[in-house]
Amino acid sequence: MGSQFTNVLESLESKYFNPLDPEDFRHKAHKAVDFIADYYKTVQTYPVLSQVHPGYLKNRLPDTPPDTPESFDTILSDIQNHIIPGITHWLSPNFFAYFPASVNSAGFLGEMLCTCFNSVGFNWVASPAATELEMVVMDWLAFMLHLPKSFMFSGSGGGVLQSTTSESVLCTLVAARDRVLNEIGMEHIGKLVVYGSDQTHSMFKKVCKLAGIHPWNIRSVSTRVEDEFSLSPHVLQKVIAADVEQRLVPLYLCVTVGTTSTTAVDPVKHLADVAKRYNMWVHIDAAYGGNACICPEYRHFLDGVEKVDSVSLSPHKWLLSYAECCCLWTKNPDLLVDSLRTNPEYLRNEHTESDSVVSYKDWQIGTSRRFKSIRLWVILRSYGVENLQNHIRTDIRMAITFERLVSSDVKFEIVVPRRFSLVCFRLKQLNGFDTESMNRKLLERVNSTGRVYLTHTVVGGIYMLRFVVGATLTEEWHVIKAWEVIKEVVNTMVNEYEWKST
Amino acid sequence: MGSQFTNVLESLESKYFNPLDPEDFRHKAHKAVDFIADYYKTVQTYPVLSQVHPGYLKNRLPDTPPDTPESFDTILSDIQNHIIPGITHWLSPNFFAYFPASVNSAGFLGEMLCTCFNSVGFNWVASPAATELEMVVMDWLAFMLHLPKSFMFSGSGGGVLQSTTSESVLCTLVAARDRVLNEIGMEHIGKLVVYGSDQTHSMFKKVCKLAGIHPWNIRSVSTRVEDEFSLSPHVLQKVIAADVEQRLVPLYLCVTVGTTSTTAVDPVKHLADVAKRYNMWVHIDAAYGGNACICPEYRHFLDGVEKVDSVSLSPHKWLLSYAECCCLWTKNPDLLVDSLRTNPEYLRNEHTESDSVVSYKDWQIGTSRRFKSIRLWVILRSYGVENLQNHIRTDIRMAITFERLVSSDVKFEIVVPRRFSLVCFRLKQLNGFDTESMNRKLLERVNSTGRVYLTHTVVGGIYMLRFVVGATLTEEWHVIKAWEVIKEVVNTMVNEYEWKST
Repeated sequence: MGSQFTNVLESLESKYFNPLDPEDFRHKAHKAVDFIADYYKTVQTYPVLSQVHPGYLKNRLPDTPPDTPESFDTILSDIQNHIIPGITHWLSPNFFAYFPASVNSAGFLGEMLCTCFNSVGFNWVASPAATELEMVVMDWLAFMLHLPKSFMFSGSGGGVLQSTTSESVLCTLVAARDRVLNEIGMEHIGKLVVYGSDQTHSMFKKVCKLAGIHPWNIRSVSTRVEDEFSLSPHVLQKVIAADVEQRLVPLYLCVTVGTTSTTAVDPVKHLADVAKRYNMWVHIDAAYGGNACICPEYRHFLDGVEKVDSVSLSPHKWLLSYAECCCLWTKNPDLLVDSLRTNPEYLRNEHTESDSVVSYKDWQIGTSRRFKSIRLWVILRSYGVENLQNHIRTDIRMAITFERLVSSDVKFEIVVPRRFSLVCFRLKQLNGFDTESMNRKLLERVNSTGRVYLTHTVVGGIYMLRFVVGATLTEEWHVIKAWEVIKEVVNTMVNEYEWKST
Repeated sequence: MGSQFTNVLESLESKYFNPLDPEDFRHKAHKAVDFIADYYKTVQTYPVLSQVHPGYLKNRLPDTPPDTPESFDTILSDIQNHIIPGITHWLSPNFFAYFPASVNSAGFLGEMLCTCFNSVGFNWVASPAATELEMVVMDWLAFMLHLPKSFMFSGSGGGVLQSTTSESVLCTLVAARDRVLNEIGMEHIGKLVVYGSDQTHSMFKKVCKLAGIHPWNIRSVSTRVEDEFSLSPHVLQKVIAADVEQRLVPLYLCVTVGTTSTTAVDPVKHLADVAKRYNMWVHIDAAYGGNACICPEYRHFLDGVEKVDSVSLSPHKWLLSYAECCCLWTKNPDLLVDSLRTNPEYLRNEHTESDSVVSYKDWQIGTSRRFKSIRLWVILRSYGVENLQNHIRTDIRMAITFERLVSSDVKFEIVVPRRFSLVCFRLKQLNGFDTESMNRKLLERVNSTGRVYLTHTVVGGIYMLRFVVGATLTEEWHVIKAWEVIKEVVNTMVNEYEWKST
C-alpha cells in the first residue's frame, strides 16, 4: 500500500460495524430454525383466531427503539410472549377462513435462498440468474397449466412474478389503456369503460380508479343465483352495447376463475368472444381457482384462454408459495413494456440498449424486485408436478368430506354448489328466527372458541359461511373436528332458541 | 366419531400430501443455513459482476418441471453450479454499484420470522400483531428521524410499509389527485400537473402516468451544476405560475433527499413553501438519503418536513433491511384511505365496521401483505439506534477515504461534491482523447475484471462514474483495493493511449 494512504488510514477509526459476520449469522439462524420448527409443531395448540383486543401490543412494547443492542434470545422470548398471542395463525390446521395460505418446507427454503442473495434484479445485468430463472419458471408453470405458446417465452409471450393480483391487473390495465389512448387521444380517458361482475374481487374497482378510470365507468355486471354467480356473456353483451351507444369506449374485461366469495367461474371462452368484438383487453383473474387447473380434470375452467390477453394466478393462495407471489402471463409483453418502461442513464448498459434481454422493472410498478423465482423453482423441483396435483386433489377431497357432513345434517344447507375446496353453507331457518342473525351468531361463537376459524360472505342477498380447506397442515380429522365444533355450538344455540320460543 | 362418517372416510384415500413436516423442515432448513453462511463467507471470492452471457441459463435447465420430487441436495448443488455463476453479488464487499443493498444477520432472522408466520395482515383481525407491530415500528423509525408528531400514530398521522418508493408515490399521488378531483370534477383529470426535477427518480414519471396524469403535465424542472443539481424553489415557482396561467391545476411535488445519480438534496423547506402557496401535496422521496437522517449531523436535510404531506424512505437501501422495504409516513391517512379503501363483505368484521383499527390494505395498492414489520423490529432491537448511526457514519467515512484517494490523483477529478456515501468522479481529459469514451472504457474494463463493480451516470451532460459504499461486508481495505483496481486499469489504458497518440 502506497504511503499516500497512511494519513488517510490513520485518520479513520479502526472499528467497523459489521452486522453480517457469517459465524454469528450461522449460530443465530440455526436458533431461528429451531424456534420455527417448534412453532410449526405446536401451532395447532394456539387459538387459531387471535383473542386479543385492539391496542393490545402498544402497552407491551416501549414507545421508542433501544439505543443499544438486545440479544436474539430476548427478542425470541418477546415474540413468544407478546407477538404470538396477537397472531391469527394462518398456518394452523384449523384455519378455514378467507383463502388459506399454503406453505411448506420447500417454499421456506426458497424464501431463505431468495433472501440470501438479495439480488435486486431490476434488469438483466443486475443479476442475470434472477431474470433468467424467472423466465424459466414462468414457462414451467405455463406448461403445467397448458397455456398456449403465445403466453410463453418459448413462444411469443412471457410471464412475470408480481406480488399481488392488484398489481397484475394494474399493469395490464394500463397497457390496455395506453394502447387505446394512443389512438383516440389522452383527453378521452373519461370515455374508457371497464367490466367485471358483482363478484369480481374488490381490488378491481380500486385498481381501475388508481389508473384514472372514471368511477362511473366501472361496470359491476349483476350475476344471478341461476348462473351460480358467474358472469353471463349475454348480459355483458347488452351492457357493452349500451355503453357503445353512449359513445363510450369499452376497454378491459376482468374474467374470474374462482371468485372470492363462492369460487364461481366465469365462462372464459364466451366472454372473450363478446369482448373481442369490441377489441377489448381480456384478463383472467385465476388467483385461487387457476391453481387447480394444473390437474387435467380442472383444466377446462381455463378453456378459451387462447382468446384472452393476460392471465394471473397466485401460488401463494393454493400452490404452496408463501406470500407475496402472483404469476402474470401476457401475450403482449411489448404493450406492457411500452407503458411501464423507464430508461434512466444510471441503469443503461449494452444489454438493455441492444434489447437482447428482459428488463423486469419494465413489467411491473416498482423498480426494485426480489429474486422471487427461486422460491417457486425450489417448490416445483422439491415436490414435482404429480405431488402438486395430489396436493390440490387432497384439499378438494377434504372439502367434499365437509360438504357431505353438512349435507347429512337437516339443520344445514349447502348454499352454492362446491367447485373447488370452498364449501358455502348455512343454518336453515329455525323456529321463525332470522336466518342471517342466527348464522352470524354461529360464526361469532365458533370463532371465539379459538378451535377453528372460518369467515362469511353475502351473495345474492344471502348470508353464508365459508369453509375453505387449504392450510397445509390440515388433515381430514381436523375437518371432522371442525364440523363437530360447529355442531356443538349449534346445539347450544338450538337449546337457547327453543327455550326462548317456548 | 358418529357412524355417519364411516362411509365418507372409507371412500377417501388414507395418504395425505403433507409438505410441512416440522422435523423435515428443521433438517433441511439447518442445511440451508449452513449453505448460506458458507456463501457469505466466500462471497468475495466470486466475480462481483456476473460474467455470463444472455441466455446462459436456459440451456442448463430442463424445459419443463419434473414430475416427481428432487432432493434438496440436488437443488443446492444446482444453485452452486448454475445459479451462482449468473448472480451479480450484491452482498460482495466489492459491490459499489447503484445503491448497494444493506443486509445483515438480524434482517435475515427477521425475514425468517416473517416467513414463519406468513400472516396475511390485510386487516386487523387477520393478524392483530402484524398490524399493531407495524404501527409501533413506524412510530419508532419516525422517532429516530425526529419526524413531527403529525406523521406518527402517537400524533395525528401514521406510517405504513410499502415494497418500493414507486408504490409510496403512487398511493400518495392518488390520494392527492382524488382530493382535488372531488372538488373540480373527475373530467378535469387532464388539467392536473405534477412536478419534480430532471434528477427525480425515473419511477416518478412512470407512476404519474399510471395514475392517469397526462404525460404533457409531468414537469421535470431543469437543475444546474451551480445548484449541485438540486431543484431551485425560484425556478419551480416560475414553472408553476406559468401552468396556473394556462389554467392548469398544480397537484403534487416530489422533492428528493439524495437523488439517484448524484445524491443531490432538494431544499425541502423552500420548495414546500412554494408548493403550499398552490395547495399542492408535497412528498419527500428520501429513499437513500433519508437513512442518514437518523444521525443528528445529517438531520438538517429533512428540515421543513413539517410542511410536507408525506415522506418515504427505503431501509433496504441503507438501513440494513433486505428488499423490499419502503417506509411511507403521511399526515393524511384519511385521504390515503379515502382513495384506497375496499370494503368487500367477506372481509368485514366488528372491528373494521367500528373504525377502531387500522386496515393496512387501505393504505396500499394490493390486498395481501406480508408481516414485514417484524423484520425491521428485529433489526432495530438487535443493533440499537447507536449502532445504526455508527453504520451510516462508517459507510460515509469509507466514501471519504475513496474521495481522498481520487482527489490525490491528478488524472482524476471529483465531479460533484460528495454528500453521503456516493463519490461521483471521472478521468480527466487525456491527450486529446474523448473524456466520455475514455471513462466508458474504464468502467467496462474495471467491471469485466470481476474484482469490483461500479456503475455510471450522466448529469448535466457529464458522464461520470459512481462509487457507492454501502454493501454490508465492505471494509476499508476493500475500498482501497477497489481504487487500486481502477488505477491498474487506467495505467494500462494510459499506455495504450500514449502508444496510439505517438
